[in-house]
Formats: sequence, structure tokens, C-alpha cells
Amino acid sequence: MYNVYQPTDEEIYREIVTELHRGDKAGFREKFFENHTYDQAQIYLNLDPSERAALQDYISPEELAEIYDVIDEEDQESVLGFLYDMSDQYAATVLAYMYRDNAVDILNELGDQQVRRYLHLMPIKAADEISVLMNYAAETAGSLMTTEFVSIFANQTVKSAMALLRAKAANAETIYYLYVVNDDNRLVGVISLKDLLISDSNTMITDIMSNRIVSGDVNENQVQIANKIKDYDFLALPITAETGQLVGIITVDDIIDVIDEEATSDYSGLAAVDVEEQQSFSPGQAAKSRLPWLITLLVLGMGTSTLIGRFEGMISEVATLSLFITLITGTAGNAGTQSLAVAVRRLAAPEDAEDKTLFSLILREITTGLISGLITGIVICTIVSIWQGNLALGLVIGIAMLAAITVANLAGSLIPILMDRLGFDPAVASGPFITTLSDLTSVLIYFSIASQFLVYLK
Amino acid sequence: MYNVYQPTDEEIYREIVTELHRGDKAGFREKFFENHTYDQAQIYLNLDPSERAALQDYISPEELAEIYDVIDEEDQESVLGFLYDMSDQYAATVLAYMYRDNAVDILNELGDQQVRRYLHLMPIKAADEISVLMNYAAETAGSLMTTEFVSIFANQTVKSAMALLRAKAANAETIYYLYVVNDDNRLVGVISLKDLLISDSNTMITDIMSNRIVSGDVNENQVQIANKIKDYDFLALPITAETGQLVGIITVDDIIDVIDEEATSDYSGLAAVDVEEQQSFSPGQAAKSRLPWLITLLVLGMGTSTLIGRFEGMISEVATLSLFITLITGTAGNAGTQSLAVAVRRLAAPEDAEDKTLFSLILREITTGLISGLITGIVICTIVSIWQGNLALGLVIGIAMLAAITVANLAGSLIPILMDRLGFDPAVASGPFITTLSDLTSVLIYFSIASQFLVYLK
Repeated sequence: MYNVYQPTDEEIYREIVTELHRGDKAGFREKFFENHTYDQAQIYLNLDPSERAALQDYISPEELAEIYDVIDEEDQESVLGFLYDMSDQYAATVLAYMYRDNAVDILNELGDQQVRRYLHLMPIKAADEISVLMNYAAETAGSLMTTEFVSIFANQTVKSAMALLRAKAANAETIYYLYVVNDDNRLVGVISLKDLLISDSNTMITDIMSNRIVSGDVNENQVQIANKIKDYDFLALPITAETGQLVGIITVDDIIDVIDEEATSDYSGLAAVDVEEQQSFSPGQAAKSRLPWLITLLVLGMGTSTLIGRFEGMISEVATLSLFITLITGTAGNAGTQSLAVAVRRLAAPEDAEDKTLFSLILREITTGLISGLITGIVICTIVSIWQGNLALGLVIGIAMLAAITVANLAGSLIPILMDRLGFDPAVASGPFITTLSDLTSVLIYFSIASQFLVYLK
Repeated sequence: MYNVYQPTDEEIYREIVTELHRGDKAGFREKFFENHTYDQAQIYLNLDPSERAALQDYISPEELAEIYDVIDEEDQESVLGFLYDMSDQYAATVLAYMYRDNAVDILNELGDQQVRRYLHLMPIKAADEISVLMNYAAETAGSLMTTEFVSIFANQTVKSAMALLRAKAANAETIYYLYVVNDDNRLVGVISLKDLLISDSNTMITDIMSNRIVSGDVNENQVQIANKIKDYDFLALPITAETGQLVGIITVDDIIDVIDEEATSDYSGLAAVDVEEQQSFSPGQAAKSRLPWLITLLVLGMGTSTLIGRFEGMISEVATLSLFITLITGTAGNAGTQSLAVAVRRLAAPEDAEDKTLFSLILREITTGLISGLITGIVICTIVSIWQGNLALGLVIGIAMLAAITVANLAGSLIPILMDRLGFDPAVASGPFITTLSDLTSVLIYFSIASQFLVYLK
């Protein structure tokens, strides 16, 4: 019988830990390296500090670097702690062996002094390459890319390109695309390994390479890069400097993480709760993390209560008015949430984030609000007029509904755009924030209109 | 100067359409195929029916199949129309040349009769393979996978494997992993092209293949498959039948689409609006698509109004009570939305969707609600007692807040789970639905408590 590989389970984990405690280096290595790198990482993350220290004696920095390369961003905070527990020299060596993009992700989370110390202890080439990558702004192509790619020249033969590829394969993050550059290191073509393999070995690269080069710019936003890779079904995208030189590549696995993160962050924003971290929280931790938003919104909601307080006299006279407060605030809140979701998603695609497009987005949302509000207003005016036998009341509710929905749509689209312009993450302008704000404006609109028609309502 | 490829712009598009109208086949082909396949698809999608018919005479079904292979799911409805415009034979040939998984995606949208007609007109091998794939349920690995992979035997040499690979490369969806099978077609190993390339040509595959096989089952949910590919950073995952035979592979580009779709659908659900389709809507279309939800929720909201109506007498007596309606409904709605977001996201990962886990999720949300509610209740009780100079009122508001938040957390986590169990998409249990429902329960709780303490409130 053949063994089908099982992702690491409890039993395998216990066996490996036992070998660690027994101090059997050979036994540990055999059992440990039977696992896939991703599973090695899961085991590593579960060890306690003394076990992790023991493991360090049994595997090389190069082997540990491979494990660090597959650790997800969500576990990165733990990784920072692990690095502090190592000697600086060991940590620096691990970082130097990692793919450059992943090493940069970790170093970006450390203090300046610590970074300098690590870079100082690395081979000069690694330190230089990492320093360059660390200079790119967060969420740009530069901050995501790696420098471990294979580049060839147009005047090489297929055979010599294959030889070069074999020599470089071990250290490249992907070998499935070869990038063709000129003497000036400018990107002039691209060829897939698939096309290379099926070509005759004496063919010149220039004759088979594609010059339909789709590339990204180092300063381009990561979402645009993600869209290119997604649309063109690429496994990697070459990244060029402003001067046209090929400086790095971004691979599809990093793009999956970008897509996943962006979607989760927009989703979390809409609900005012970090959904990803919540999954592992105890009720106490969950309450602690959610309360700041709840209390902030409570204080904002007090504004609405105060506002209603100003109309308390009117409500004593016409208590019927209180029946429709939640109806108007609720419906306007729902409409505002819809506008918000559309606007936040639009802002996530930076190519669309030009002022003109955004202005037309706001205009569309207001118009949508007017149309939805008019229809909803007519519906509720009819229902209330019949139910309460009071056309004036129906009209007040209907007009208030129209105005409240339109204002909510304006707020739902305008606020995330303003936040984006002011440099905040628009996803933070959460659904609950918009609904709470919309409560305030809706109540103001409702009672202002009602007070104008008060004589007809009594 | 070297040309850097520009994704198709207006000008290129017009030139290509001009060639089509001039009837210059050679000129058209030259200009058209200068574009990347993805851009060819964008051009194709923008043609009018007569231009599309002309294009069909100029390019082969095989070339058109390559274009269809990169068309996104969101444009699939248009594709169905295009197929009807072709002769059945032409359409069947295009489908047969497409990658199997993509052909299946399209055929799944067609009527039984049309599918039978196309399958009948295809080469038998293609029709057979497609029929098998069409039998898998939606959202399973089987429905996503393709049968165009390269499999080899363990007793082959590297050299013979490379020869086989070269021969099969043109028709395989990916050649970057080779799957090693035994005589029974069971998966016994896997080797990456990278490892194959750096191995000596006389080495036996069995000596260099990895037997740490991570695979998926044909009936596994697509989200689990996506997680495996994401976690292990794979470019493709082998899929086995229940009997262990290798039956297909799923490539990373299809997984990106799965991740993107799942995230967008959860996000859209939370806001009760299909965010993706909204981006291209006119205000009229946008209003039309959003109104069904708004009106449904309005009717549900009328329940809350009716409920408040029952307490109208009490409000006439103590109008101050009306000040805090929106505060309690709003805060409970916010808390419920947080619970909902966490529950929906949890349900998106099917491995976690066991009854026991889900029960513990609900329990955790209720406990979180109790803790958050207690703290929020104490805060608001203090504020209201001081502001209104009435401790009884403060207590009523505080207790109502505690109860309303706890119930909202219960509803927010229970409702999506119930919907999932009843076979509905839990993402449809949208944020606005939960907040509107929570308005009703919050008002009921608030006024019930208030009526108990009425003598102290006057």
C-alpha cells in the first residue's frame, strides 16, 4: 500500500515533540521533515519557547527560513517574538535565507535599531537587496515583490537559457516565467517555461519570446497588481522601475493573500468588527474588542436622543409620531448601508478612485436615493394614511422617508470617499457608523417636517 | 526602442473593428493577435453581433476557445447568447477545444436539450470527459476541476518524463506539477517541474518524487480546496475520486475566482445589495435592484411601528421614553451586525460548520452579548440617571440595553446558522435584516420593562 500524506494531526505532533524532548536529533529530523513545509510551520508555531530553542539546534537557519517563508501574515506577530528569542546572528541568517519579499514583511514590523542590527549581520548582497525593498511604501508593488527571478537575454539560445534556468532554479521564487532583458536591464520580452520546453534547443529566445509584456510599476497599488494577475491568469507579474528596468516579480501566492486581506478588511469594516481575529476569541476577548465601537456609537446615539428630547413637547401632544421613529431611521439606515458598501468596494479599486469618477458615484447614489426614497415614501404614505386615517400624517412620514433616504445615500457614499481623501482606510467608515449617523439626520428631518404640519396632526 | 505592451485601448479597438469591417482577414488577424488573450476577450465582448459573426470567419474555433477560456464568470451570461448566435457545430467545436472545467461552467448554464445537442456534435472523448464533470454538484471540487493534467509513473526516468511532458505540454492546463500514479491510476507521488529540471536525466522518478501528497476529494467543498491551495502555496491541487484514483486538478487561477466570489457574496449579503453588479448600474437600475429589500424591510419595520402603537398611551404619559427608542434599537442592531458578520464568515469555512462548533459559536455570541450588554447597560444607566435626574429611568434603559444586545447577538448568530441548515445561503441573512428584526425585539423588551416600572418613571 502507498501512503497518502496526511496533514499533520495531533498524534504526529506529539511524536515530534517527544523526539525533541528526548534530544534525538536524527529521529526528530526524520519525523519532522516528513511533513509538508506548511505543516512544519504549524508544528513550529505550536511549540513552547524551550522546544523552539531545542529545534533551532536541530535544523539549519536555511531550513528554518523555508518554514518562515510559508507562515501567514496573521501569525506574524508570534514570529517577531520568536526572532527576539534567537541570537541576533541566527535571526539575521534566517532572514537572509528567506525570500526577500517575506523577509521585508517581517522587518517592516521591527524597530529601526533591530532592523539595522540584523542587516549588519547579513551577507552584504542580502542586506542591500532588502534595504532597497524596505524603502517602498506599504501596499505598493515594491513592498510585495521579490528580487529572486530569472532573467535572460534575447540573443541566447533555448539551450543556454535552460542551462541558466537549471543553475538558478534552486534560488528563484518562480521559474515558470523567464524575463528577457536588454543590456540596460529593461524588460523586452517574456517567455513561459512551457514555451521554452516545447521549443527546439537551438532556437533563439528572441524568436519565441512574447513581447506582449504586461508588467506592473513599483509604485502601483497592490490591488491593481492583484487585478492584473487575476485577469490575465498569470502565475507572476514582472515589476519595473520608473526608468523601465526590471526590478522584481510578484507571485500569485502573494496576490491571493492581498485579495483575501482586502476582502476581509472591507467585510469587517462593514460590520465594525475584525472578523478574522474574532474566530479564535473567548467571549471576554470578543466583548473587549467590540465594546470600543459599541460605546463610541452609543455616545453618537446619545446625540439622537438629545435631539428627540428637543421635540419631547411635540411627542407628548402627538404620541403617534413616536410610532414611526424606528421605521424612518431603520429604512434610511438600510439604504445608507447599501450606498456605503458600493462606495467602499469602488474605492478598493484604485484605478477608479479619480475625483471625477467618485463625484459621479456620489451623484448616482443621491439619484438612486431620490428614486428609492420617492417609491418608498409613496408606499409608506399610503399605508400610514389608511392605517391611521390621517393623510397629513401619511404625507409627513412619506416626505420624511424620501428626504432621510436621500441624505443617507449621500452620507453612505460621501463619508468613505472623504475618509479615503483624508488618508484613512474608507472601510473603517463602518455600516454601524453610517446607520447611527443616519439615525441623527433622519430624526432631525422627521421632526422638522412634523413640526411644520403639527396643526394637521393633532 | 522596444515596445512595451499596452493593454488594449480605444484606439487599438477601433483599428481592429475597422479591419473587421474592411473584410481584411490577414490585417485583422495581425492586429488582433498582437493583443494578450485577456485583451482579445475584452475586444470580443465589445463587438456587436454582426462584427462577432465576421470575426468567426477569420479565426478558428480553437483560437476562439482560448479566448473563451479567459472570459470571467461575470460575463458568462453574454457568452451564452454568443453561443446561440453560432451554428451548433461551431459552438460545440469551441466548447470541445476549451479547458474542460471552463466548458463545464458554460454548459451548466444551458438547458438539457442544448447540452445534449452540443455533446453530440463533439469528439467522443471530449463529450465523455465533459459529461463526467457535469455530474458533480455545484461548488464541489469535481465541478471546478479539469482533466487536462500530466501524469507519469514512478518507474520512469527523468528523461522519459521530460519527453512525455514536452509531448503533452500544449494541451495541459498546467505542466508545473507532474502527478505520479500507479497501475491502478492511484496517486502515489508528486514532483514539481522545478525539481524535475534540476535532477539528473537518468534518475528514477520514484527517487525524487515527494510522497507527501496533499490532495482534494471530488466531493469536497470548493472553499476547503481554496484554503488548501492558499495555505500550501500550490499552483494546482490534484483531485482524487472516493476510490483514490486521480481524476483531475484544480489550478490556482480558478481558486482566486472562488475566493473573490465568496468574499464578494458575503460582503454583499451584509449590506443587502449585490455590490459587484451595482458598479455598472444607472441610478434607475440601482434603485430597482435595491428596492425589493428596502420595501421588504419597510414592511417588517411596520411591525415595530405597530408594536410601539400598543404602547402609545404610555408614551403620551411619559414622552421621555421616546428619546431612547433609537438609542436602544441602534446599539442592539450594531451588536447584532457584529455577531452576524462573525457567524457568516464562520459558515463560509465548511470544515467548521459542524453542529457542535456552531452551538459553541452561538453560546459564545450570547456570552459576548451579556458581557457587552452589561457594560453598555451600566454606562447608559449612569448617563441617563444623571442627565434626566431619574434613577428608575436609567435602570430601565440600562436593563433594556443589556437584554436587547444579548437577544441581538443570539439572533445575529442563530439566524444565519438556521438558514444554512435549511439550505439557504446564510449570507442572505443580511445586516439590514438583522437590524430590522432586532428593532422589533428591542422595542418589545424596552417597553415591556418600562411598563413594569411605569409608576417610578412619571
